[in-house]
Amino acid sequence: MIRIALISTGGTIEKTYDELSGVLANKVSVLDVMLASLELRGVEIVRAHLMNKDSLEMTPEDHTLIAETAGRLARETAGVVVVHGTDRLAVSGERVVELVGTPASPVVFTGAMRPYELRSTDALQNLTEALLAVQLLPAGVYVAMHNQVLQFPGVRKDPARGTFVKDGAR
Amino acid sequence: MIRIALISTGGTIEKTYDELSGVLANKVSVLDVMLASLELRGVEIVRAHLMNKDSLEMTPEDHTLIAETAGRLARETAGVVVVHGTDRLAVSGERVVELVGTPASPVVFTGAMRPYELRSTDALQNLTEALLAVQLLPAGVYVAMHNQVLQFPGVRKDPARGTFVKDGAR
Amino acid sequence: MIRIALISTGGTIEKTYDELSGVLANKVSVLDVMLASLELRGVEIVRAHLMNKDSLEMTPEDHTLIAETAGRLARETAGVVVVHGTDRLAVSGERVVELVGTPASPVVFTGAMRPYELRSTDALQNLTEALLAVQLLPAGVYVAMHNQVLQFPGVRKDPARGTFVKDGAR
Amino acid sequence: MIRIALISTGGTIEKTYDELSGVLANKVSVLDVMLASLELRGVEIVRAHLMNKDSLEMTPEDHTLIAETAGRLARETAGVVVVHGTDRLAVSGERVVELVGTPASPVVFTGAMRPYELRSTDALQNLTEALLAVQLLPAGVYVAMHNQVLQFPGVRKDPARGTFVKDGAR
Repeated sequence: MIRIALISTGGTIEKTYDELSGVLANKVSVLDVMLASLELRGVEIVRAHLMNKDSLEMTPEDHTLIAETAGRLARETAGVVVVHGTDRLAVSGERVVELVGTPASPVVFTGAMRPYELRSTDALQNLTEALLAVQLLPAGVYVAMHNQVLQFPGVRKDPARGTFVKDGAR
Repeated sequence: MIRIALISTGGTIEKTYDELSGVLANKVSVLDVMLASLELRGVEIVRAHLMNKDSLEMTPEDHTLIAETAGRLARETAGVVVVHGTDRLAVSGERVVELVGTPASPVVFTGAMRPYELRSTDALQNLTEALLAVQLLPAGVYVAMHNQVLQFPGVRKDPARGTFVKDGAR
Repeated sequence: MIRIALISTGGTIEKTYDELSGVLANKVSVLDVMLASLELRGVEIVRAHLMNKDSLEMTPEDHTLIAETAGRLARETAGVVVVHGTDRLAVSGERVVELVGTPASPVVFTGAMRPYELRSTDALQNLTEALLAVQLLPAGVYVAMHNQVLQFPGVRKDPARGTFVKDGAR
Repeated sequence: MIRIALISTGGTIEKTYDELSGVLANKVSVLDVMLASLELRGVEIVRAHLMNKDSLEMTPEDHTLIAETAGRLARETAGVVVVHGTDRLAVSGERVVELVGTPASPVVFTGAMRPYELRSTDALQNLTEALLAVQLLPAGVYVAMHNQVLQFPGVRKDPARGTFVKDGAR
C-alpha cells in the first residue's frame, strides 16, 4: 500500500450545481464522492484541502502556495496528486519546477474539462489516471489527463482541443 | 396509442454544458436524448420547437406565442406537454388560461430544477410525469413536476422549496 | 399531500448484483435508493414489504397475500402502488379484481424489464409513473409502465414486445 | 501518439443484460461503448477480438491462444491490453510468462468485478488504468485493476477481497 497525498484546489472537476442561481461553481468539493466511487486498493490517501477556486481566479500567491505544498508533501509521502482547474494548471506546474526542481516523489496534476456533476464527464477518468500514474512514474512534475502523461516544464493547455500538449509537439 | 404534442421552449431542463465557456446554457436541445432514454408505449409524440430560452429572458410576446401554440395544438392532438423554464413557467400557464380558457385537451407544463445533463437531475422524472399526466387528466392547464399535478390558475413557483405550489396551499 | 401505500414484492426492478456469484438476484431491495433519487412532493409513502421474489417463483398463496394486502391498504390510504415482477404481475392483478372487485382506492402495479441496478433501466420511469398515476386515477386495479396505464381485468404481458397489453388490443 | 493493441476475450466487464432471460451474459461486447466514453489522447488503439467468454468456461487452448496473441501483438505495437474475466485471468497471465517470457512491450491484463452495464461498476476505472499503465510500464506481464499494478508471475485473484494480490503479499 503506497501512501500518497491528494491536494485539492478546486477547478471545473470539483464544481457543483447551485439550484437557486442555476450555475456551476466551486462551493463544496465533490472529491470525497469521486473517491468513494473508485476501488482504491493501491494507495492510502492523505487529503490536503488548500482552496476551492476556479483557477482563472488564482493569484500568484495561490500558485506559490500550491507549489510549496506539493514540494513539501512530496518529501512526506510516496507521491502527490494535485486536483486543479485546467486554465491555470500549467502555471502551478511550472511553479513547482521553478521552486522545487525535481520533487522528492512524483507530483501529478490533474483536472477536468467537464465537472464530475455532469452525466458525461472526464473527471473520474482523469482522477483515476492521476492516482495510478503517481505510483508508476519516477520523481518529477506531470499532468495526467485524457489517457496521457506529460512532464513539466513545457506543458500547456490547448483550449481548441480541450486538453494538454507538450511544447514542440504537433 | 394517443397522439400528443410536445412543445419545447428551453429552460434549465434543456441546458447543456459548454466546455469553452464553462457554463450551462440553452444552446442545443437535449429533449431528443431524454425521449430516447424513455420507453414510450402509450403516446405518439409530435414535436414543436418554439424557442430555447432561459425563461427569465422570455418577453411578453414569447409567453403569448407559447400560450397560443398550446391552445392550437390542444385542438389538433389528444394533449399537449410544454417543456419550460421554471422561473416564468407560471406566466405562460396563466396566459393559456387567459387566452384559451379551458383548452380542447389537457395542456401540461413541466420543467426542472436541475438540468438533464447533470448526474443528479429531476428532468427525466418531470418529463415522465408530464407525458403520463397528459393521458390521464381532463382538459385544463396544469403543471406536472416532482410527483404532483397542480391546475392553473393560481399556481406559482416557490423558490425556497424549489418546486411549485397552489395559491392558498401552505 | 396524499398518503399512499407502497407494497414491495421483488421482481426484476429490485434485483441487485452479487459479485461472488456474478448474477442478478432478489436479495436486498433497492426501492429505498430509487425513492431517494426522486423528488416526491405529492405523496407521503407508507412502505409495506411483503416479499422479495422473482415472480416466476411466486406461489398461489403469494398472489393471494399480495391481493389481500393491496385491498386492505386501499381502504387505509388514498392509493396503493405494488412493485412486482412482470412475469406474473398480471396474475396478482387479476387476483385483486377477483378478491376485492373495485378496491376502495386505486391499486397500481408496476415493475421493470431491466433492473434499477443497470445503467440503462426502465425502473425509475415505471416507479415514477405508478406514483403519479395512483394520484390521478379513479378507484380500480391497473398496471402503469412504459408511459401507459392499463386497467384490469384483461391485461397481460407481451414478452415479445417486452411490455403489457390489453386483451383485444393489437 | 502510442499505438497499442486491445485484445477482448469477454468476462464480467463485457457482460450485457438479456431482457428475455433476465441474466447477464457474454453475448455482445460493450468495449466500443466503454472506449467511446473515454477521452483517449495518448493512444491509438488496434482492436483484436479473440472471444467473448466467461473465463470460467475457457479451455487450455483458449489460454494459449490469448497468450500467443498477446506475445505476437507485443512485437507489433508499443503495448497490449487484454480484457479478461477475472476468475481465470491469472491463468492467461502466467501462460504469457511461460510462453513468451518477457514480451517485446508491456502486456497489461484487466477485467472487472461488476459489469460495465451496471450503474455502479469498476469496469471503466480498470480499463482506464490498463490503458494508462501500458504507456508507463517497462516490458513485462501485469494486471492493472483497482488502482494497483501487479506483475506476473505470482499474481492470483483473492475472491474474498474481490481483487488481485501478489503471492507472498499479506
